[in-house]
Amino acid sequence: MSSILIANGPNINLLGTRQPHIYGTASLKDIESLCRERATHYQLSLECIQSNHEGELVDAIQGAHGRHNGIVINPAAFTHTSIAIHDALTATGLPIIEVHLSNIFQRENFRTHSYVSPIADGVICGLGPEGYGLAIDALAKIIEARES
Amino acid sequence: MSSILIANGPNINLLGTRQPHIYGTASLKDIESLCRERATHYQLSLECIQSNHEGELVDAIQGAHGRHNGIVINPAAFTHTSIAIHDALTATGLPIIEVHLSNIFQRENFRTHSYVSPIADGVICGLGPEGYGLAIDALAKIIEARES
Amino acid sequence: MSSILIANGPNINLLGTRQPHIYGTASLKDIESLCRERATHYQLSLECIQSNHEGELVDAIQGAHGRHNGIVINPAAFTHTSIAIHDALTATGLPIIEVHLSNIFQRENFRTHSYVSPIADGVICGLGPEGYGLAIDALAKIIEARES
Amino acid sequence: MSSILIANGPNINLLGTRQPHIYGTASLKDIESLCRERATHYQLSLECIQSNHEGELVDAIQGAHGRHNGIVINPAAFTHTSIAIHDALTATGLPIIEVHLSNIFQRENFRTHSYVSPIADGVICGLGPEGYGLAIDALAKIIEARES
Amino acid sequence: MSSILIANGPNINLLGTRQPHIYGTASLKDIESLCRERATHYQLSLECIQSNHEGELVDAIQGAHGRHNGIVINPAAFTHTSIAIHDALTATGLPIIEVHLSNIFQRENFRTHSYVSPIADGVICGLGPEGYGLAIDALAKIIEARES
Amino acid sequence: MSSILIANGPNINLLGTRQPHIYGTASLKDIESLCRERATHYQLSLECIQSNHEGELVDAIQGAHGRHNGIVINPAAFTHTSIAIHDALTATGLPIIEVHLSNIFQRENFRTHSYVSPIADGVICGLGPEGYGLAIDALAKIIEARES
Amino acid sequence: MSSILIANGPNINLLGTRQPHIYGTASLKDIESLCRERATHYQLSLECIQSNHEGELVDAIQGAHGRHNGIVINPAAFTHTSIAIHDALTATGLPIIEVHLSNIFQRENFRTHSYVSPIADGVICGLGPEGYGLAIDALAKIIEARES
Amino acid sequence: MSSILIANGPNINLLGTRQPHIYGTASLKDIESLCRERATHYQLSLECIQSNHEGELVDAIQGAHGRHNGIVINPAAFTHTSIAIHDALTATGLPIIEVHLSNIFQRENFRTHSYVSPIADGVICGLGPEGYGLAIDALAKIIEARES
Amino acid sequence: MSSILIANGPNINLLGTRQPHIYGTASLKDIESLCRERATHYQLSLECIQSNHEGELVDAIQGAHGRHNGIVINPAAFTHTSIAIHDALTATGLPIIEVHLSNIFQRENFRTHSYVSPIADGVICGLGPEGYGLAIDALAKIIEARES
Amino acid sequence: MSSILIANGPNINLLGTRQPHIYGTASLKDIESLCRERATHYQLSLECIQSNHEGELVDAIQGAHGRHNGIVINPAAFTHTSIAIHDALTATGLPIIEVHLSNIFQRENFRTHSYVSPIADGVICGLGPEGYGLAIDALAKIIEARES
Amino acid sequence: MSSILIANGPNINLLGTRQPHIYGTASLKDIESLCRERATHYQLSLECIQSNHEGELVDAIQGAHGRHNGIVINPAAFTHTSIAIHDALTATGLPIIEVHLSNIFQRENFRTHSYVSPIADGVICGLGPEGYGLAIDALAKIIEARES
Amino acid sequence: MSSILIANGPNINLLGTRQPHIYGTASLKDIESLCRERATHYQLSLECIQSNHEGELVDAIQGAHGRHNGIVINPAAFTHTSIAIHDALTATGLPIIEVHLSNIFQRENFRTHSYVSPIADGVICGLGPEGYGLAIDALAKIIEARES
Repeated sequence: MSSILIANGPNINLLGTRQPHIYGTASLKDIESLCRERATHYQLSLECIQSNHEGELVDAIQGAHGRHNGIVINPAAFTHTSIAIHDALTATGLPIIEVHLSNIFQRENFRTHSYVSPIADGVICGLGPEGYGLAIDALAKIIEARES
Repeated sequence: MSSILIANGPNINLLGTRQPHIYGTASLKDIESLCRERATHYQLSLECIQSNHEGELVDAIQGAHGRHNGIVINPAAFTHTSIAIHDALTATGLPIIEVHLSNIFQRENFRTHSYVSPIADGVICGLGPEGYGLAIDALAKIIEARES
Repeated sequence: MSSILIANGPNINLLGTRQPHIYGTASLKDIESLCRERATHYQLSLECIQSNHEGELVDAIQGAHGRHNGIVINPAAFTHTSIAIHDALTATGLPIIEVHLSNIFQRENFRTHSYVSPIADGVICGLGPEGYGLAIDALAKIIEARES
Repeated sequence: MSSILIANGPNINLLGTRQPHIYGTASLKDIESLCRERATHYQLSLECIQSNHEGELVDAIQGAHGRHNGIVINPAAFTHTSIAIHDALTATGLPIIEVHLSNIFQRENFRTHSYVSPIADGVICGLGPEGYGLAIDALAKIIEARES
Repeated sequence: MSSILIANGPNINLLGTRQPHIYGTASLKDIESLCRERATHYQLSLECIQSNHEGELVDAIQGAHGRHNGIVINPAAFTHTSIAIHDALTATGLPIIEVHLSNIFQRENFRTHSYVSPIADGVICGLGPEGYGLAIDALAKIIEARES
Repeated sequence: MSSILIANGPNINLLGTRQPHIYGTASLKDIESLCRERATHYQLSLECIQSNHEGELVDAIQGAHGRHNGIVINPAAFTHTSIAIHDALTATGLPIIEVHLSNIFQRENFRTHSYVSPIADGVICGLGPEGYGLAIDALAKIIEARES
Repeated sequence: MSSILIANGPNINLLGTRQPHIYGTASLKDIESLCRERATHYQLSLECIQSNHEGELVDAIQGAHGRHNGIVINPAAFTHTSIAIHDALTATGLPIIEVHLSNIFQRENFRTHSYVSPIADGVICGLGPEGYGLAIDALAKIIEARES
Repeated sequence: MSSILIANGPNINLLGTRQPHIYGTASLKDIESLCRERATHYQLSLECIQSNHEGELVDAIQGAHGRHNGIVINPAAFTHTSIAIHDALTATGLPIIEVHLSNIFQRENFRTHSYVSPIADGVICGLGPEGYGLAIDALAKIIEARES
Repeated sequence: MSSILIANGPNINLLGTRQPHIYGTASLKDIESLCRERATHYQLSLECIQSNHEGELVDAIQGAHGRHNGIVINPAAFTHTSIAIHDALTATGLPIIEVHLSNIFQRENFRTHSYVSPIADGVICGLGPEGYGLAIDALAKIIEARES
Repeated sequence: MSSILIANGPNINLLGTRQPHIYGTASLKDIESLCRERATHYQLSLECIQSNHEGELVDAIQGAHGRHNGIVINPAAFTHTSIAIHDALTATGLPIIEVHLSNIFQRENFRTHSYVSPIADGVICGLGPEGYGLAIDALAKIIEARES
Repeated sequence: MSSILIANGPNINLLGTRQPHIYGTASLKDIESLCRERATHYQLSLECIQSNHEGELVDAIQGAHGRHNGIVINPAAFTHTSIAIHDALTATGLPIIEVHLSNIFQRENFRTHSYVSPIADGVICGLGPEGYGLAIDALAKIIEARES
Repeated sequence: MSSILIANGPNINLLGTRQPHIYGTASLKDIESLCRERATHYQLSLECIQSNHEGELVDAIQGAHGRHNGIVINPAAFTHTSIAIHDALTATGLPIIEVHLSNIFQRENFRTHSYVSPIADGVICGLGPEGYGLAIDALAKIIEARES
């Protein structure tokens, strides 16, 4: 049975309670439920993590090697500042889907550059919690293709 | 019954026959079939266009107002050069999903800027033909939400 | 009897029906009526074109040589992207007045650069449909001065 | 009876006597006569000032609030360097038309950026003294529209 | 018998009649005659097109695949703005020679960047109509080398 | 009784012992005493934290929501690199005063940009430990004004 | 008895009457009263000037040498454009506190660079009229420290 | 008898009393004496002005036309910020020598660009008060050459 | 007996197992053995740390003050993003040698800037694990020189 | 009998023996033979030089004045760094053809700027040794045209 | 027996006698002795050159091919300006170690870019004459590895 | 008896014969005579060199140390490209006057940056051969001041 890691970056734990006009009303729990449901649909096992600490995300991404078959990551603020996450993701050799809840191209200029995009297999942004669902759809296909 | 427009930009008509290492082996026809199938799933009517002419795309996008309920667009090379398409999309007032077959962040530097992204509802890139399918999934939800 | 060409770029055909908070409620027809009236005042013959196709605008501008005595052009989105229109206008050798309905200096950053301004005789922007009227006023004087 | 301020920046007092190949042969006096005539046509009262001192222009612009109904300004060299004039104009809350005798887009690169354009209602450039006339035409319409 | 496409971009149809101080007095017809003569010398069949429409050039370039053995292109204004032509040329897999009549490095700054050069086999500029002749000389050698 | 959070970023724990020519001789303890005294003056409760870990600061800032009425933050090196802290501060919805002991505009160029300033209510820099005192003065007024 | 100069730049004389959503409702008079009160608290003599003329501010700053013991300056628009004020402030050899009523980092991009900050002892911005009070608090301490 | 204008910009009146490590110990008076002596040597009449007001310098430069035969100008801080002085100098049609006491290329980066240099006949910098002497030497030769 | 700290940044713990074409086949353990051996040669005591957490590295670097006589650091991804490490290293006052296994000047553009180099005593890059050995050689000499 | 100079810059003497995947297998000798043959065809006398010393190339170019009627130059690495060669070429007043063996637009970014192109009559690049032949073809025509 | 070339660029011949605060007191002779000793340790033959002439360095580097097995180069000022040396080094196909006596990242901004680093195997900087010794250590290992 | 070096860069040997509209009609010989005469006036011994070879200029500048008391240098094209000359001049420790015949600020953009100016004592440009005379005047004073 294949497995995927859902990794969420800083401040994603606040979802649903603050700035709903930007990030919507779904909580991180809601997103994780949505992911779990979708993963079950593809018979994928799922691990979810969220951290405000860049180092913890690097540790978790490193740990995915050998334990998971793909990663869905919303690096949040670290998207634009973390080369360490870029390097850790590269080192896993796993398929990566980058997700953003909001459309980062409609916000501050510093949010338009991502250190993750050049090493991701796919990027999905602006589609809210459903973006995670679509990412799992895409990842499931890639994992299936790799295994066959 | 709602309807959507699938608009493809220049050189997308060559898909499947040339540079398959970048764009894959699916033809434009294959992609349109995939779209039609997915649209049927959501009981959405579908119109597909492809043009190498910026003006024809602008005409078609203008024509979507009042006839369609959303647009999936892969502007291809015009992504990076066409403010006219940006303006036409904005004027429709419709939900827009931008799709790219390849991961534009892994290619030439001039492909990393998009005139469409800041006015799209969502952006999906790097996921091949399936990106269109995911775009229709997303658009179907947005249209449903708008109508309810 | 002298004659002038009024050339309008992409999406100007939508005027009056969409985004009236930016472009006002006058339609392209209204603007062309305003132009016709003003041209009549100066006993100038008038041809009006609008196109979403850069190539059609280039063709029309080339055709103005020998048929018209001056050009009023609102290149719209092509203002910022078309060197072909720049070259065609230069080649006519005719007096050129560039018009913009909205104040392009108050909008997105990419609208502040114009390929047409450096080769125009005059630039009028932000004054709505009346900008066309003022452009004809100015062009009439320039044509009169050239002919005398 | 409405009133407008015509404000001219540094070195405009030299008009007609020096560098006529750039600025033409009309003197500042000629331009003010042209303005007076045009204002009379619209039954607008008129005040004309010219100064080589940024501070005097700021003082005059501040003074326009409550005394005038609109401003036509040719900030000349201050166009490109004065945020103080930008701020004073903004503070008046009056309609502003920016005028340049020459086409600033055909000259040195440092003349292509204007601190005034983003807060002007309209910009007219390259049309010589007649640019002032057109500016009064435009301002008269705006004032009339505001008052009705 | 091998065949080549000579593709000319916008405003090249005006050659010989306007701005001869930049582009010389030869007309497009003269250039096409020169090309035909030179092609005959190498027993190459020849197709010549010129268009002011980016889309028509993209269509023609796409059509060269399977019909021609090489392309000589003077993209004119599209040199600096068209990624669609860049993509179409790349997709043909044919040898490409880029030609410019004038020395683009002696003109406006925006003419110094070419989207075509990085994917051309060779670039020839500043040598007037003879540049086309030299391009055919070069292309004939490349085609001969490929075929042997 | 209102309460405020004093948050200090990396290396502030070294204050007073190293590089006193830049940061002065006061220790972090001294600064916290100064803050406590000043807070008492306004009958404000006070929590002080310092961390070299971006993630801990993000956690603490998130935790301020619902527990504190305002934040004084000296993000130190994170001022220039942490979008995560920017996002966490924004999410609290609390008034924020940014403090820097040294004048960051007199040091290396990379210290002149702050990710915090655009979302702070006020910025105080270059005034040493007393800057914290002034920040509490200012914050006390803002809190008082919000509550009345 | 020590003395300080409060210097205000262009358009600060309009405070309270225009754009109160940016600058608040306090007038320059109110600010000067606040300053006088605070100065009295520290037994500091006070001189207040405001000018829309860069040259008058330079004259006043030069005059502070030998007459005052410190300067609080809000250079307003001149913050971003005046090297002359920078040079005059440097030449006084006095402690300088730069104050801005609004948070200049939340406004137009051209307001984020200050010619004064690199030579100021401290910078306070975004705290409204109270910013002046805090500046006097800080200056009083610096003057006291210098004298002891 | 020919005549020259010596124009000095802001803060030059402080020379000799402040920052002697940068500007030396000679006062403005000393420099004017040096100039007078040198001018006498060439039988040139001399007018000296210094102002902290850009507008006064513009007035004086305009006034030089018809009264003087050349200008030596040390625009000081206005070197880098005043297009008005650039325009006034250009309008005089007189030979211009730009002088700087200190070597502006060894100081802050913003002092390396001069609006005056591109329109000066010669530039002399870094040579202290003697730079004025050399400027008069050079100007005397140019005036002599023009008159002969 | 002197002592040195060997500090390794994020993802260095993966050495030897992943991307050996870039980083080689030696593991972190191998490198630490190499370091230990070399340190023994110079009778230097040695502490080795590796962390994926910027904050832990800052803590460790702060802790080196008073316990170690020099630092060899390979900041890995933090080289390019961490001002906090820059500040902590500066605060130690110890000699610093920066090491990179790969030649960072041959990789992505964002790896060519280092926040550590300007405050390091020496930089060694591209020489694989042996780079650490050379760094200890160099550090031993510097420590010896400082102590004598 | 007319004469031309063939000047080759640094490292061109290595042609044919090293990096043949970039520069091909023809040696400098081969290229000079090709040139001699082609020159004979046009009854042009020929001098060939190659140097790794910028100064020797400058000397040779200066010497071409009065001895040769045109120059074909491949400045190699000096293309991008030598203003001295630019100045020497300009001073000769001769027609100049710039040649590059490889397509410099497909290589490192620093090879895309040429100090020679803006003063060359023509530029030919990417066509290998044949590029020299084409350059002589072109130069022969220019010399013939100048002489007639 | 293997052999290496030690190449030193301009002004290195002055070492030890001038600016010892930057470059130390060791002379070029001292450095060459140090190198000779270290080379003997590895049974490497050694050739040392120094030149102020870029062309001589290019000649020497070209000559290293077939005569030496590796190069240690301190290009000094040519580090930042010579593409010719970059090209010559590349052409040798030999392992290259770049050495700088001082830490170039602590000096003028123009010294932070090196044309040599992207093609060097390793870079060592800031470690004074010992940097050459370390470079030979490293080169000896690389040569040994290549030969085995 | 003191002595000075007059050093002239590439293409200065062509003076008087080519491009007299830029550089005037005086030959290098004329300039050297002018210098000799002026030097005699100050009882200064004089050595004149000119070279098109950067290395020869570096050699000559190095040789000035201990033989000359000051340098007048017109680095010509090397002004903008030679860090080696910058370094050699710095190493001499002698007073340096940089001279340019033409006003480099009125020419191509690449001539506005000088590597020599930041280390020169003075810069004189645009004053033709007389600029050398003025440079000797200035140098004589500096040498006299140093010696006294």
